[in-house]
Amino acid sequence: MVKPTSIIRLNADDSDFTHHLAHLLRRESVSDDLINQRVLNIIKAVRECGDKALIDFTSQFDKLDVKSMSDLIILHERLELALMRITAPQRDALMIAAARVRSYHEKQKQNSWSYTEADGTILGQKVTPLDSAGLYVPGGKASYPSSVLMNAIPAKVAGVAEVIMVVPTPHGEINELMLAAACIAGVDRVFTIGGAQAIAAMAYGTESVPKVDKVVGPGNIYVTTAKRHVFGQVGIDMIAGPSEILVVCDGQTNPAWIVMDLFSQAEHDEDAQAILISPDAEFLDKVTAIINELLPTMDRAAIIEKSINDRSALILVRDIEQAIEVVNLIAPEHLELSITNPQTWLPHIRHAGAIFMGRHTSEALGDYCAGPNHVLPTSGTARFSSPLSVYDFQKRSSIIFCSPQGASELGKTASVLARGESLSAHARSAEYRILDLLDSNSKGTEI
Amino acid sequence: MVKPTSIIRLNADDSDFTHHLAHLLRRESVSDDLINQRVLNIIKAVRECGDKALIDFTSQFDKLDVKSMSDLIILHERLELALMRITAPQRDALMIAAARVRSYHEKQKQNSWSYTEADGTILGQKVTPLDSAGLYVPGGKASYPSSVLMNAIPAKVAGVAEVIMVVPTPHGEINELMLAAACIAGVDRVFTIGGAQAIAAMAYGTESVPKVDKVVGPGNIYVTTAKRHVFGQVGIDMIAGPSEILVVCDGQTNPAWIVMDLFSQAEHDEDAQAILISPDAEFLDKVTAIINELLPTMDRAAIIEKSINDRSALILVRDIEQAIEVVNLIAPEHLELSITNPQTWLPHIRHAGAIFMGRHTSEALGDYCAGPNHVLPTSGTARFSSPLSVYDFQKRSSIIFCSPQGASELGKTASVLARGESLSAHARSAEYRILDLLDSNSKGTEI
Repeated sequence: MVKPTSIIRLNADDSDFTHHLAHLLRRESVSDDLINQRVLNIIKAVRECGDKALIDFTSQFDKLDVKSMSDLIILHERLELALMRITAPQRDALMIAAARVRSYHEKQKQNSWSYTEADGTILGQKVTPLDSAGLYVPGGKASYPSSVLMNAIPAKVAGVAEVIMVVPTPHGEINELMLAAACIAGVDRVFTIGGAQAIAAMAYGTESVPKVDKVVGPGNIYVTTAKRHVFGQVGIDMIAGPSEILVVCDGQTNPAWIVMDLFSQAEHDEDAQAILISPDAEFLDKVTAIINELLPTMDRAAIIEKSINDRSALILVRDIEQAIEVVNLIAPEHLELSITNPQTWLPHIRHAGAIFMGRHTSEALGDYCAGPNHVLPTSGTARFSSPLSVYDFQKRSSIIFCSPQGASELGKTASVLARGESLSAHARSAEYRILDLLDSNSKGTEI
Repeated sequence: MVKPTSIIRLNADDSDFTHHLAHLLRRESVSDDLINQRVLNIIKAVRECGDKALIDFTSQFDKLDVKSMSDLIILHERLELALMRITAPQRDALMIAAARVRSYHEKQKQNSWSYTEADGTILGQKVTPLDSAGLYVPGGKASYPSSVLMNAIPAKVAGVAEVIMVVPTPHGEINELMLAAACIAGVDRVFTIGGAQAIAAMAYGTESVPKVDKVVGPGNIYVTTAKRHVFGQVGIDMIAGPSEILVVCDGQTNPAWIVMDLFSQAEHDEDAQAILISPDAEFLDKVTAIINELLPTMDRAAIIEKSINDRSALILVRDIEQAIEVVNLIAPEHLELSITNPQTWLPHIRHAGAIFMGRHTSEALGDYCAGPNHVLPTSGTARFSSPLSVYDFQKRSSIIFCSPQGASELGKTASVLARGESLSAHARSAEYRILDLLDSNSKGTEI
């Protein structure tokens, strides 16, 4: 009834392997002029008309009869009500997940530091939280309570005083689990707005929505495009692509476990990517058979099938060493090392968003409750970027406090370099503080 | 002869102060379609034609007769030669500055960490350097050796194996001090290319120029536009605006020192901004007088005059407390606290790129040799971003290594939350690892 999977098979020893791999990983960048223009118009309207624009856009896009901004504000009592309404197991699960995420992220908190040099000069780094952050949560089916925890908790651990959340409620549809998660994560204010208009509101502020310092959270193409446009006006987290998993398996894990791990990525989205690398060709055959066996039993079979057949692959390698080479080429968002003694190979892994080690650590555990963040660098950007973290909600100021003696000594060096760059005001500003020169320069004496 | 300065005077107690301040700080965002199109064409040409495109663009834009890529490569011997050619005081100054910058940035180096939970589950964070980084250095007059140190040293401290540098040499003009700085900072390879073509080469790679993981460094509008376009393909540092300084003075510092500190910012660029805040109106008068007195003596008088008259301001406040409120509104790139006991006020400063404390700490010392980085967040982005640092050249991977018992417990929580999000592959993947269920689920037994 269901067609056998046509998942791509590659062999890392083939001469054209890197060519095929590059093709597999290729992402066309989106730059749709029409979307850009629509988003720019929405941002302009929100900047000019504030709440009025939010009311109009929300009525139009979310098919709601909005009379005033008070219809678009969720009070804290409503979040508490949601926490009561969900089932006890759900409440417990959210609480456990939140506590573990908080505990892990507490370890990322950075403190200010300084040191004093021999001449009394103090150098240091002052760490402060952002004043405020705005969390975008997609509406409807993609409204994930776990994302609320993963985005809001690091902000709160960092010490961000005001965390606001926006979530569209198309046709009035609202997710109780998501509101309960917001309650547990300590979100301060919630607005039921979405799309580019919600991003614009948080970036520029309206009468009701406060302007925040940084906007985080996933969204559709309009949300992502709006984030690109407001970047600079506010900070943003990252521009995420489709999610991906790379599993390295030595062939000794139950193939059904591996198939379900691949499916857990594939079920997100037809564009999601699931790649399995193994030195065991027979194991890859078994996995293929089990893909065919399990696929019809899945709730999201159609999405999974498309992702597996169009975007995914099974790669045969000579050995684990070659597998790790391929890992470093791919720089995956999620990496599962379903192998014996995974810690032996850890030092050789240079690029990965999150590393799930051993046969028992499925990606799903990290998605929900292990502790580390599930917002991870996609599309190979793990080569240069990192999971969402407390660091993203803190910032640093350099501290320089020179003693008179220190300023005098540094001034001599600065003067030479400044004159070498033809920046004589820099040089003179430094020279004023050179103690030997103070007497000979009437302008340079402290009054 | 020279017209008296028309620098703006504001009073923080005036009812329309925030309006005037907003006007003063307003930056028009640049979005020139023509520049965008030119840059996109250049990027396309470099991607398609590689070295050939670099040779053509460099011949055309830098007015050079380039025959092959070897004309555009500076060998390490040439850097060493430059280090010999500069004067001994210049060499000493570069060495001192590099040592101090290195010493400060060493303190930023992050280490991997992990912890083990009671059931044997290991959680952690693995820190790795980027494989490679590319440093853009503007050519001609804006070619600052200090920027080479400030960009390359943090990368090398982070452990980046390959740091490449690009610098255009219009009409063949090359800066020995800059090459010497590259030698001292440990830059691995230098190419004499510039503009959008150099950014494209580093982002996509050519036959001769390696593809890097992150591009850093300042540049003109073409360079900046190209950086925006390649963001995602590679990491970028930041999109910097014109430089600014904010000086808070209690009126007890020699006004000539303060004027020269303002000038040192103003001499960069007609768009640079220098603001002085003081509770002492007479001091502001003195400063105005000394601006008029010193301006004609400055090498870059015309640039300084325009920056001071068009972009700068003197702000009268009631007291230092009100001054600090204005500081937090502005979120300056450079903040000088030229006041008694500046450390008393430090806890109240929420947003600033770098804080220069006390009467002796001129910004110029930080620009060259104090130790902290001189690449700082401009245009109020200190609200959410930080100085360039070792952190920018490291990345993190989350580590999750569950014991069978840990996976089993976490699996129960993950299952509830995944089903709450209708992601049943996630749920089943977690459930496979629940130990109680292993017997009742034939698929779930480890082979």
